Amino acid sequence: MKKLILSLLIIIPLISIAQAQVQPYLNLEEAMRIADAAEEKARQENWNVVIAILDGGGHLIYLRRMDGVQIGSVEVAQAKGKSAVYFKRPTKVFEDLVKSGGTHILSLPNAIPVEGGLPIFKDGVCVGAIGISGVTSAQDGLIAEAGLKAL
Amino acid sequence: MKKLILSLLIIIPLISIAQAQVQPYLNLEEAMRIADAAEEKARQENWNVVIAILDGGGHLIYLRRMDGVQIGSVEVAQAKGKSAVYFKRPTKVFEDLVKSGGTHILSLPNAIPVEGGLPIFKDGVCVGAIGISGVTSAQDGLIAEAGLKAL
Amino acid sequence: MKKLILSLLIIIPLISIAQAQVQPYLNLEEAMRIADAAEEKARQENWNVVIAILDGGGHLIYLRRMDGVQIGSVEVAQAKGKSAVYFKRPTKVFEDLVKSGGTHILSLPNAIPVEGGLPIFKDGVCVGAIGISGVTSAQDGLIAEAGLKAL
Amino acid sequence: MKKLILSLLIIIPLISIAQAQVQPYLNLEEAMRIADAAEEKARQENWNVVIAILDGGGHLIYLRRMDGVQIGSVEVAQAKGKSAVYFKRPTKVFEDLVKSGGTHILSLPNAIPVEGGLPIFKDGVCVGAIGISGVTSAQDGLIAEAGLKAL
Repeated sequence: MKKLILSLLIIIPLISIAQAQVQPYLNLEEAMRIADAAEEKARQENWNVVIAILDGGGHLIYLRRMDGVQIGSVEVAQAKGKSAVYFKRPTKVFEDLVKSGGTHILSLPNAIPVEGGLPIFKDGVCVGAIGISGVTSAQDGLIAEAGLKAL
Repeated sequence: MKKLILSLLIIIPLISIAQAQVQPYLNLEEAMRIADAAEEKARQENWNVVIAILDGGGHLIYLRRMDGVQIGSVEVAQAKGKSAVYFKRPTKVFEDLVKSGGTHILSLPNAIPVEGGLPIFKDGVCVGAIGISGVTSAQDGLIAEAGLKAL
Repeated sequence: MKKLILSLLIIIPLISIAQAQVQPYLNLEEAMRIADAAEEKARQENWNVVIAILDGGGHLIYLRRMDGVQIGSVEVAQAKGKSAVYFKRPTKVFEDLVKSGGTHILSLPNAIPVEGGLPIFKDGVCVGAIGISGVTSAQDGLIAEAGLKAL
Repeated sequence: MKKLILSLLIIIPLISIAQAQVQPYLNLEEAMRIADAAEEKARQENWNVVIAILDGGGHLIYLRRMDGVQIGSVEVAQAKGKSAVYFKRPTKVFEDLVKSGGTHILSLPNAIPVEGGLPIFKDGVCVGAIGISGVTSAQDGLIAEAGLKAL
């Protein structure tokens, strides 16, 4: 009898996983936590930026524009985030590629070769991205990294 | 003497207006306060929506998508807000017009005839807008109104 | 003999003009004159509008936005003018058509069914258009008419 | 008593600024003055161009196309102005960056790397931009500069 119960205890979770077929995702609470951490870093450095957090489909979950930031950064921050989630890699990878002569990727749809976009992973699944714009691309990248540490 | 002071009280503001040629605007702190009030109303009613706050040029200051909202609402909320700020009127005006036979405005660039977008005024100047999308357009409108009360 | 040659020297260029296959067009000076007359009408009525003057290809020659006009009118005025030149008719024709049930033209590329766009003709050739936006479509139409009278 | 008046003179403007949260902007009269100065420079040099003046949200206030200018310049002048106001910097900065190897910014939304777009500032606030197109980019830049001197 004990054996049967033990077997069930082991088997049932396996069954539910098999039935459920789930993948992780990013919710609003997490997106706001990431944005708060990014803004804190930006304030420490006295930088003003747009912070965009996107989901695994490349759609906005959250966006915050600090006062005085150039309006061009509203689109750029989203474009960086979209690029990071579309290609599951930091936009810096594309920036480095172009800078070392790989200008051919400039025509690649949604590939933004400017640092400041980072994909967000959970259990190896890309669940979204953070995109930062407002200061230099290297500084944007530091803010994006600070944001991800909060997750 | 009293007269002189009174005269100064009246004249000084006029001078600064004449010299400065300034207009009011909306900042991030206010945008977040509006969004918080809108979300509170949505939670009370158990509705999930996208909340978008735009500046006087139609550019995003702040966007928040509650968990589970259809992704189409990310663009719809922004489109409603943009319409409200571009035409300085609630999008409900366009919805009512179309419903009462004024279908001709359906082709007007940036005119979104669906309730849920409200312009934000300060001293008679349109400084931005709130756009809500996720439930029915009438419900979206109630949330937008609740948001504006926080300003 | 000399006289004959002299006569020919005078007549031949005239003939070549007749042969040259030309068409009339609208220049900047005329466009500004039309815009001035339109603005004068608008000021008389205390209306604020965007005034757009386009060439025979539908491209802007001149645009003027009076202070305080809703920014949506910048695109709408151009769209009305473009529609008038693309179809060589007042946009009111499309508005009347839609209002009497002809909603099928709402999907027609560049057909804007809102009064305020008027084509400009010279010798039967459509050389451009004026587009007005900012007040009601009937008022926009009156301003457009006042502008054309200056040509 | 004099002291009181002096105090009022100092305090009242501070109060109204604190209460008002205002920022400068560009009006039509100023936009036309800038365009006149730009056109004067262009005529002196015998250059023909499109002159576009935008507001702080990147929307047209004023556009003038001199006779004979290529129609492509209508959009290019606006794109340069938009880029200057979106990124609060001359478009020459982007041109220089690309020419010195920074081709990665070619994909950045709204970044136009061609001289001829200049932001317009008042009290440190970007209130709009001038965009010129029609001759070489260096010549476009000279005309833009001549325009701004009129403000």
